[in-house]
Amino acid sequence: MTTIPAALAARLVTDPDVKATYAVDESVGAVPPGDFEVVRARDLADVVEVMRHAHETRTPVVPQGARSSLTGGSVALEGGIVLNVEALDVVSEVDPLEGLAVAGPGVINADLKAAVAEQGLFYPPDPASSAFCTIGGNVATNAGGLCCVKYGVTADYVRGLQVVLPGGEVIRTGHRTAKGVAGLDLTGLFVGSEGTLGVVTEVVAKVVPAPDPALTVLGTFDSLEDASAAIAALRRERHVPSLVELMDRASIAAVQALADYGYPGDCEAALIVQSDRPGHTAEDVALYADILEKAGATEVAVADDVQEADLLLAGRRALSPALEAKGPRFLEDVCVPVGRLTDLIRAGQAISARRGVEITMSGHAGDGNLHPSIFFDADDPASRENAEEAFGEMVATALEFGGTITGEHGVGSLKARWLAQELGERELERQRAVKALFDPHGIMNPGRVYWS
Amino acid sequence: MTTIPAALAARLVTDPDVKATYAVDESVGAVPPGDFEVVRARDLADVVEVMRHAHETRTPVVPQGARSSLTGGSVALEGGIVLNVEALDVVSEVDPLEGLAVAGPGVINADLKAAVAEQGLFYPPDPASSAFCTIGGNVATNAGGLCCVKYGVTADYVRGLQVVLPGGEVIRTGHRTAKGVAGLDLTGLFVGSEGTLGVVTEVVAKVVPAPDPALTVLGTFDSLEDASAAIAALRRERHVPSLVELMDRASIAAVQALADYGYPGDCEAALIVQSDRPGHTAEDVALYADILEKAGATEVAVADDVQEADLLLAGRRALSPALEAKGPRFLEDVCVPVGRLTDLIRAGQAISARRGVEITMSGHAGDGNLHPSIFFDADDPASRENAEEAFGEMVATALEFGGTITGEHGVGSLKARWLAQELGERELERQRAVKALFDPHGIMNPGRVYWS
Repeated sequence: MTTIPAALAARLVTDPDVKATYAVDESVGAVPPGDFEVVRARDLADVVEVMRHAHETRTPVVPQGARSSLTGGSVALEGGIVLNVEALDVVSEVDPLEGLAVAGPGVINADLKAAVAEQGLFYPPDPASSAFCTIGGNVATNAGGLCCVKYGVTADYVRGLQVVLPGGEVIRTGHRTAKGVAGLDLTGLFVGSEGTLGVVTEVVAKVVPAPDPALTVLGTFDSLEDASAAIAALRRERHVPSLVELMDRASIAAVQALADYGYPGDCEAALIVQSDRPGHTAEDVALYADILEKAGATEVAVADDVQEADLLLAGRRALSPALEAKGPRFLEDVCVPVGRLTDLIRAGQAISARRGVEITMSGHAGDGNLHPSIFFDADDPASRENAEEAFGEMVATALEFGGTITGEHGVGSLKARWLAQELGERELERQRAVKALFDPHGIMNPGRVYWS
Repeated sequence: MTTIPAALAARLVTDPDVKATYAVDESVGAVPPGDFEVVRARDLADVVEVMRHAHETRTPVVPQGARSSLTGGSVALEGGIVLNVEALDVVSEVDPLEGLAVAGPGVINADLKAAVAEQGLFYPPDPASSAFCTIGGNVATNAGGLCCVKYGVTADYVRGLQVVLPGGEVIRTGHRTAKGVAGLDLTGLFVGSEGTLGVVTEVVAKVVPAPDPALTVLGTFDSLEDASAAIAALRRERHVPSLVELMDRASIAAVQALADYGYPGDCEAALIVQSDRPGHTAEDVALYADILEKAGATEVAVADDVQEADLLLAGRRALSPALEAKGPRFLEDVCVPVGRLTDLIRAGQAISARRGVEITMSGHAGDGNLHPSIFFDADDPASRENAEEAFGEMVATALEFGGTITGEHGVGSLKARWLAQELGERELERQRAVKALFDPHGIMNPGRVYWS
């Protein structure tokens, strides 16, 4: 049975129903184990105590924030401790001169954005779950989102971390200064490590001057190839769009079924493109509209005030709940070279047709990061198995096209069995050896990412 | 005696004079050892062969490019092999759609810039040694330079690496796609590792759309505090300057002694500020000029055509040779929070006065990265010792102000003895353990960075 030090008794979640909610995340098919404990840490000392105890007793630890993981990275493990850090939610510092902000891992992404915005600053990483996902989880999965085509991913905005290692040692990585090359920078190891090395307890984030509120242009296309040509042309623009999103017909239909967000129904693909360039958003979206038209868009709508622009983007942001509402699904997160995006979508359509499984296609087209949703009937095991096999085929296709099995959601549990295919067994062994340096007893999220 | 496999005989530098030039870099006091060999690798296979042989025979390896290191990172070691990779100098790929370029480690920084510029692209990292330093060396020291206030450092532009490890294994880190979080990203470990883990044989660099040719504004100040206020105000600008450099009176005098670059002589500090924002450089420099004036600049000159702007920047770029011409010196590279820069300069002035040693102050003010030059008389051991102690006092002061011992030049040999002070013994041990994973026999640049 999972044991917890007496000092942490007051941090334990004891109500069975509440505890059950901490057992799972947003990943498909997550099932609570029989025996586990949930500790809701209130401060660094709580985290240290859990990590000391778990290391000594060889107890598995699952670091957890808002439980918005889509890959099973924060589901409770049998005999383990769920170490929830959502209460470490203070933005302790915002410094415009140094261009940094310091946040606890439990700070909601949107709250960090809001806190720095008060000082005219911007924290770019922008997962679709921005309103409820935490910075700690963003760091764990090197989260990206809609802004990455212009601004990059979470790793590009982490200057340094405070991390608690198994055994309870508290370390700092990286630096607070703008530059620094004294010793190895371990920061990049922890970003994207999905809770397999330690628990992040503080993030020193890089922030930049705030852009303008974005304006939006929406283009619809009868042909995927035309949409692809538009993406390629946009990638050549000196004024990089702050967002280049793609939705296929089924995705748009799902969104419009929720509410009228102003999207046309009849097209093979829609591109949503934004500019947030200070002082020049209207100029940019007019240019982007022209690019979409020249690439063969059948209809182009420019949202030239912020309200209308927000409505179009709200539609894109409603896509996750809209697809959620359609029923159970496997959610893909493959990323390929931008030049192979159309090939990937065509391959997805072929898989859908061959298997008779519904697949919607959408994602961060400017990055080559696609999020197909593969639907199944929860009451029909054969349907689920068929969808899961389609999921695997998408992964294999992405690898074949020079891509990766995960762009921003992480490997978690759902994709662990494909990691060796991407990295090779030898590289996997090397990475396990790196993990063992920090976590010699293998207590951190065991079985996840590295499979064994 | 250092041995070399017969297969590499044709790659050996045998002429004693030529060999001697490969024994040292640009660091002060570098002395060739008695017994060493120089291998000029022509391709990956040569590098693999050296790394296989050196690992087996426990022979020290010093990876080397253009030998522009200022900290002794590429000086030959007694009984060791200098593995020079400057002949791996091909830019094999420039891809505007994917926003990447692939370069060998021997490609000169300026040549990579030129190669991508042909396709309307920009590789930002911009050390003052851009005309002769190599990309491999830039990766090894996480080089920065003049552009970092807007664009960041080398680490921000490395998507992935090919590295040869001791023993000859060839690995790839990172990814070619815009996003990717499959497994640990080891890229950040190698960037800034100063040849202590392996030899970089290929860099997958991120490139961005080309900005405009920069325009320049120069402001002179009677008071350092006014210059500081100007830097703080510039840091609040939404249109981030692409360059914010500071030179003190002695630095300006040194530059003007070389040639007339248009710098005024009589001031405590000069700030050079640039904008490269597409379509808006003139607007920006006018705004920056206004900011400098409001902060108390005594004179402000706007170079509103590219030729004049280049002249002012040429003066800044001439600073290194100008200081070089003044005589032997220790060159500092500390980085502090931007808000402590004036304190650091004042401390440097106090050290200079107390010790009676000439110190010029200049550097990348927008990053808090200062490069004081501490001069000495090469014929007078006491003068040299005095300067070296001043060097140590600058390092200690930077640490006291929350800074780092090295912003962008690396630890190398010259600063190895201070690394423990910055990282702590425990962190140093951890980093040595990480190094040992990749280099179990400790053959890579032994004695450098980690001291023992």
